[in-house]
Amino acid sequence: MKKLIHDREKFVSDMLIGLKYSDPKIDLIEDSIVVRKHKKDTGVTLVSGGGSGHEPAHAGYVAEGMLDAAVCGEVFTSPTPDKVLAAIKHVDNGDGVLLIVKNYAGDVMNFDMAKEMAEADGHKVETVIVSDDVAIEDPELRRGVAGTVLVHKYAGYLSDKKQSLTQIKSEVEKMMTSLFSIGMALHPCMVPTTGEYGFDLGEEEMEIGIGIHGEKGIYREKAETVDKITDRLLSELFKYNDNKDLVLMVNGMGATPLSELYIVTKNVMEALEEKDIRVTKLFVGDYMTALDMQGFSLTVLNHDDHIVSALNAPTESTHF
Amino acid sequence: MKKLIHDREKFVSDMLIGLKYSDPKIDLIEDSIVVRKHKKDTGVTLVSGGGSGHEPAHAGYVAEGMLDAAVCGEVFTSPTPDKVLAAIKHVDNGDGVLLIVKNYAGDVMNFDMAKEMAEADGHKVETVIVSDDVAIEDPELRRGVAGTVLVHKYAGYLSDKKQSLTQIKSEVEKMMTSLFSIGMALHPCMVPTTGEYGFDLGEEEMEIGIGIHGEKGIYREKAETVDKITDRLLSELFKYNDNKDLVLMVNGMGATPLSELYIVTKNVMEALEEKDIRVTKLFVGDYMTALDMQGFSLTVLNHDDHIVSALNAPTESTHF
Repeated sequence: MKKLIHDREKFVSDMLIGLKYSDPKIDLIEDSIVVRKHKKDTGVTLVSGGGSGHEPAHAGYVAEGMLDAAVCGEVFTSPTPDKVLAAIKHVDNGDGVLLIVKNYAGDVMNFDMAKEMAEADGHKVETVIVSDDVAIEDPELRRGVAGTVLVHKYAGYLSDKKQSLTQIKSEVEKMMTSLFSIGMALHPCMVPTTGEYGFDLGEEEMEIGIGIHGEKGIYREKAETVDKITDRLLSELFKYNDNKDLVLMVNGMGATPLSELYIVTKNVMEALEEKDIRVTKLFVGDYMTALDMQGFSLTVLNHDDHIVSALNAPTESTHF
Repeated sequence: MKKLIHDREKFVSDMLIGLKYSDPKIDLIEDSIVVRKHKKDTGVTLVSGGGSGHEPAHAGYVAEGMLDAAVCGEVFTSPTPDKVLAAIKHVDNGDGVLLIVKNYAGDVMNFDMAKEMAEADGHKVETVIVSDDVAIEDPELRRGVAGTVLVHKYAGYLSDKKQSLTQIKSEVEKMMTSLFSIGMALHPCMVPTTGEYGFDLGEEEMEIGIGIHGEKGIYREKAETVDKITDRLLSELFKYNDNKDLVLMVNGMGATPLSELYIVTKNVMEALEEKDIRVTKLFVGDYMTALDMQGFSLTVLNHDDHIVSALNAPTESTHF
């Protein structure tokens, strides 16, 4: 295993120390909770997080205009409830805390336990569960993937506009009804703690419908040229969203060069234009990764003037 | 070869079409020249470029506060003089054009020919040659690598401050006397047009002093943990720069996950702190890549209040 690491057991803690050096506006508390140095005095505060290995998610989105705290578990491992509780206590200014949780059993359970403990302590807490990954057919079981980052941004904007906890939860849940993603990989990721690949993939194969925790895809198919891959992913997304005006995110999985992401973008945009679908806001880059996986995901969201204003509003995160 | 491409011969042109979709503020002229949609009416204009495969360099830096045009050759291949000339003619508003050229024989020759042709047409043109890569001992032969991006930013700032062509050239050349970089790779990159790796590297080996065009390093060594790698690179840089206040860039080579770049950052910063060296401005990310190479480079520059203000000044490039 060749990786840029020192001690595989310290992968996450070393990474967070490096992150802190890179952003003078954040602090690291209890070794694994990234918070803003200047806390928000008023307004709903936003806590997200989950397993690490998805950088820049979620710690890179702790910034003015987006999150107030990110609770960082070990690689692909949910943070414990006490850490989530510590984050809630740290950020809450009395206006309530929204937990933005990706739909994984461990995360949902641990964030929920933290919510109960915080409520027992008098904090007002609500949760939104992101489950945008249509690789899984059953809506109840859908995983939260790259669309989560758009939720961070929208909720951050609503909080800055001083909406209440109930209003933000309701607006975000409305937005999520048209938020769908699907991803693919040409190469799996290597989990640094074990030195093992998440799955094996032949020189002529690709995975469609991968997760962001090293899970293999729902479909193993013959590797194709990018135009066929983007058509394949779009056909899955169109089962759920056939709106004519869309927000689109082309998200790299961690080890996909930007040049290839742009080639993906060209093929997606041309396919959408052929269908008379207009992209009113386009994101291209690494937003929600799976360590060093090579591949990408597509996320679509119905256009809405208010949401697009929110996505275009300034944030101090350098990753959005 | 598994890559997210459609037609290997169209790698660059497809990529640039995707880039144009992603940035509504740029235009693509003559298929391979990226320019600002809103041209600068006054002030020195900046043209850079070279072979493609270094994304986001250089096209991603065509934006307010940075470049006016990037001339994009094929992968790792210098653009032809007529393309550079077309860029000069497009951007020049009468206040003169600065060419920012990385020190490679092909680039230097082709940009120089374009300069001569443009001057014959009445344009005022100057050139700065970036040669920050201390992997090569002979200063005349040193390659231009990640430090080039800091030159783009500094020159862009000076142009916005309405400095003259002569002033900007002189300021940038002064800055470059303390600008040094060195890079390493755990895995080579694959050139999409050939499907070949730039070099072969064993499971226990790494390359120190790699170039950004798939060239192997100056030294092939046993792969080490990241703390030893960062010490190794810093010891090379300290041969040239022992200033106590530095600007530092930790640059990913294209397929290095952000988590590992942060681990690199931690190790570099702690090594510098031990030597009482203060980093007054830190950059971490993919700034100058080599397709899907796995590895990183370090760039140092002497602190100077004026230069750091310039680096901190706003730019519309989302990649800086």
